[in-house]
Amino acid sequence: MQSEEQVTAAGNEISESFKTAKKLSDQVLAKLKENPGQYTMLTGDRPTGRLHLGHYFGSIRERVQMQDRGVHTNIIIADYQVITDRDTTEHMKDNVLNLVLDYLAAGIDPGKTMIFTHSATPAENQLMLPFLSLVTEAELHRNPTVKSEMEASGHALTGLLLTYPVHQACDILFCKANVVPIGKDNLPHVELTRTIARRFNERYAGGNTVFPEPAAILSDSPEIPGLDGRKMSKSYGNSIMLGATAEETAKLIKKSPTDSERRITFDPVNRPQVSALLTTAGLVTGRDPREIAEEIGDSGAGALKAYVTESVNTFLAPHRERRAELSKDMDYIHDVLDEGNRKAEQIAEETLDQVRSAMGMRY
Amino acid sequence: MQSEEQVTAAGNEISESFKTAKKLSDQVLAKLKENPGQYTMLTGDRPTGRLHLGHYFGSIRERVQMQDRGVHTNIIIADYQVITDRDTTEHMKDNVLNLVLDYLAAGIDPGKTMIFTHSATPAENQLMLPFLSLVTEAELHRNPTVKSEMEASGHALTGLLLTYPVHQACDILFCKANVVPIGKDNLPHVELTRTIARRFNERYAGGNTVFPEPAAILSDSPEIPGLDGRKMSKSYGNSIMLGATAEETAKLIKKSPTDSERRITFDPVNRPQVSALLTTAGLVTGRDPREIAEEIGDSGAGALKAYVTESVNTFLAPHRERRAELSKDMDYIHDVLDEGNRKAEQIAEETLDQVRSAMGMRY
Repeated sequence: MQSEEQVTAAGNEISESFKTAKKLSDQVLAKLKENPGQYTMLTGDRPTGRLHLGHYFGSIRERVQMQDRGVHTNIIIADYQVITDRDTTEHMKDNVLNLVLDYLAAGIDPGKTMIFTHSATPAENQLMLPFLSLVTEAELHRNPTVKSEMEASGHALTGLLLTYPVHQACDILFCKANVVPIGKDNLPHVELTRTIARRFNERYAGGNTVFPEPAAILSDSPEIPGLDGRKMSKSYGNSIMLGATAEETAKLIKKSPTDSERRITFDPVNRPQVSALLTTAGLVTGRDPREIAEEIGDSGAGALKAYVTESVNTFLAPHRERRAELSKDMDYIHDVLDEGNRKAEQIAEETLDQVRSAMGMRY
Repeated sequence: MQSEEQVTAAGNEISESFKTAKKLSDQVLAKLKENPGQYTMLTGDRPTGRLHLGHYFGSIRERVQMQDRGVHTNIIIADYQVITDRDTTEHMKDNVLNLVLDYLAAGIDPGKTMIFTHSATPAENQLMLPFLSLVTEAELHRNPTVKSEMEASGHALTGLLLTYPVHQACDILFCKANVVPIGKDNLPHVELTRTIARRFNERYAGGNTVFPEPAAILSDSPEIPGLDGRKMSKSYGNSIMLGATAEETAKLIKKSPTDSERRITFDPVNRPQVSALLTTAGLVTGRDPREIAEEIGDSGAGALKAYVTESVNTFLAPHRERRAELSKDMDYIHDVLDEGNRKAEQIAEETLDQVRSAMGMRY
């Protein structure tokens, strides 16, 4: 799962448990590439705003690759999770429809990928009840991501934020996803999902595998800083939106801060702002940021910004063109979502039937 | 809501807040008797075993009265709440079907009263998600009933036990119940439901009343001790089951403990066991336990037990006869539940649609 908060600045220490998880992830990915048809993937977004370049390189691109490999690809638009840490649902519809627009413009094919929302899939949500019986309150509290998200939000810990890792387990398990692409912050969520699947099978299904234990796929993508070198965040205004115009993008890059040194060098630790611009240009051109820095050399920040603007807008032009084209027919966008919701609910109903049978709740 | 744990021994101190709640409850009940058609009631049971005499006088009798007055009566069989504090769902189907049998035998009319289960009503359960956003973890923790139920169970606090008062709010609010008959232990649950309704209306519905705030109806029924004077509980084997045979009932009463004093007197504090037998006989005959005690006088415990056995079996004979008759056609019992589930899910879908509209989640 990917959320707007997830794209963090580079330089975090890489722990041993992360290394182990990455090794496992690489093994699963290798097998997946051999037999993509045997894999079901679940990923998604909170509809809290528009998608930006960080989302694109952090997750959207990978989803398209997975879909095109032949993996069963599912994308949840987690609308109820918008209210885990805020009191309003304003702009919800706008955000959801724009997410779908960006997905399709980026290459997600609704004929291959199921796109759906929480609010429209009751049978999926019902799994919350049996799953909540499988975790203790202490386990819910131990989740480090829940804690840090609560602190970041400055909001009291709601019942929904406390239990949202269980809701993620519903997302993953209702469609029996066996691979979940995530950033490393979400490793504890996948671990909890595995625990829930295991306990359900043991406690309620007499050891039969109603739910497979999913594997985490850790992205190889570099983490992209915002244009100012800080974490990419809507509130910092430092993110290049996929759906922005070329002019808006130019303006945003123009006003992004740099430093007083004229010579352009790639040095993320000491020159985070200049380096963020170089990283961005490197990603959209596929070039090494160091090479770009040398090329610009003494031409200074103005030349760097011109290069970044040009390369980002060139890169995003086809996406924006498809997006504009798609937005002319919003009925189609609604149809995509309706069909995804219908399909997801049907799958959830089948899973729920298995759950009822396992738990002796068919009367 | 009524649960097996709820029928406690008499003699608890009555608090000021209870007195206030009782006064409010009496006012609502008076209005309800004038205009029953304007009231919708939600009550229910956890299917953890068979119903006993405590359930009958504590809640079932009142439900039949409400139904017969013309109140819209709804009974939830809370199957998922069986696993709030235990690890197994064994005997679930048997318990659920026997509940329905007892309801109907006691006079619940499925043409007037909707009987349904959690596991079969996804749209009802979905309300958990928006409702969990409206309570803080601190509020969930403050609930005294959750704490005492956790302690009584000797089980770790599960996510499901912590959040079950929110699930009760879903039960009450999905059908827009405005009256909820409860024992005093469940007053905090109704208070939480009122809070959730109020916050939903304020936060997500711009002040419109999507959900009414329900009123608690506190029963006038005396609390019935088990045959041994302790709290009625399946694990103590001190409860007279509605569906037991006359012979089983006679045996149970025969082996119930008394004391060494021959003369029978009604003295709940000093002679809890003898007094429990007198209370039971008083309830089923409509007589004053003191009068029964005087009548038996020096004839001793044997004569008392003979009187209790005779009066209980006489009282339960019509119930047991109807129960036996109903159990010959289990297809009908299944139909009652299927129809209740279908109707409940339809009502829940309508409510969920209003919730989606209020929250801007219609795409």
